[in-house]
Amino acid sequence: MKILVVLAHPNKDSFNHAIAQSAISALKKNSHEIIFHDLYQEKFDPIMPLEEITAQKYATKDKIIIKHREELKNAEGIIIIHPNWWAQPPAILRGWVDRVFVPDVAYKFGVNDKGEGVPIGLLKAKTALVFNTSNTPQEREVAYFGDPLENLWKTCIFDFCGIKTFFRKMFNVIIISKPEERRKWLEEVEKTVNNFFPLA
Amino acid sequence: MKILVVLAHPNKDSFNHAIAQSAISALKKNSHEIIFHDLYQEKFDPIMPLEEITAQKYATKDKIIIKHREELKNAEGIIIIHPNWWAQPPAILRGWVDRVFVPDVAYKFGVNDKGEGVPIGLLKAKTALVFNTSNTPQEREVAYFGDPLENLWKTCIFDFCGIKTFFRKMFNVIIISKPEERRKWLEEVEKTVNNFFPLA
Repeated sequence: MKILVVLAHPNKDSFNHAIAQSAISALKKNSHEIIFHDLYQEKFDPIMPLEEITAQKYATKDKIIIKHREELKNAEGIIIIHPNWWAQPPAILRGWVDRVFVPDVAYKFGVNDKGEGVPIGLLKAKTALVFNTSNTPQEREVAYFGDPLENLWKTCIFDFCGIKTFFRKMFNVIIISKPEERRKWLEEVEKTVNNFFPLA
Repeated sequence: MKILVVLAHPNKDSFNHAIAQSAISALKKNSHEIIFHDLYQEKFDPIMPLEEITAQKYATKDKIIIKHREELKNAEGIIIIHPNWWAQPPAILRGWVDRVFVPDVAYKFGVNDKGEGVPIGLLKAKTALVFNTSNTPQEREVAYFGDPLENLWKTCIFDFCGIKTFFRKMFNVIIISKPEERRKWLEEVEKTVNNFFPLA
């Protein structure tokens, strides 16, 4: 399977990078084709420009964006890795969604029985995994903030685009985590990837 | 009062810009001091760089970011205006929060009775208003997506930073709105601003 892996963290020594490496290593062992983007490393431009937002279906001449859209369209599985910053992804990933998840790539609008416009998910991928890191304890993340990243990726983005199999795991509290704990977390990443994207 | 107004939309002819103009006009009539940022116009860089995230308390040498932090610290009221893109703000505004809402500006960590770290909001502003535009009908936004922008701005950002008086209004459905409807919406913006930031 063609698996798209997208990472957004400025620090190459971050635990996010370690997660990406574990995920990629598991995918490789299972003989999948990997398309990997380290958005910071690639200096991805997340700012939706005026000419794109005003074009029919966000058409663009930007070759990098065209390539990202093709890759998303053709991906058979998706893995997203990012830290929890203000209950959201970093801006560089925020804008990757804006510019890449466009009509005729990720969704289109149809009409229901009542004549109302309804979104139809178009992604070929059936499964999306999201791995996050956070410095907020999980109980507080859920009780106080409502764990917004779950709803964001599961419902607002992937379900909307037709992906029904969704799994997300947030590793916390990163800042006080011990090497042994991190090692176990990386094993968990590998197991999860093996589970959802096994050897064919 | 010093009111910070921040706008994020690529199109100068957008309804978001009209909202900003109405808000600013009301603030002027009420003799407030206005600090206005049109993030797209100013080509704000929303990408948190490695050197900032690894510095103690996100210290930076970037003069633009230092100025933004000072303005946020000193603001006595805040107004945010942006479209609903994938249930979130555009990347340019997403990153403005990452780079500007930093420790000792927007919050600090204290210790509670149990010896646990607890965030303490530091913003001087007592009131924040958020105006959004959307192409999703409000009932669907609430029922299907859970209106994530409400929780994001109210709880995850402003409450966390100490702002307890919060008001948000999303205008929808923009794409099918008539001039008369838009005129009424702009009047509503003015009334809201007058209500929360009256003539002293």
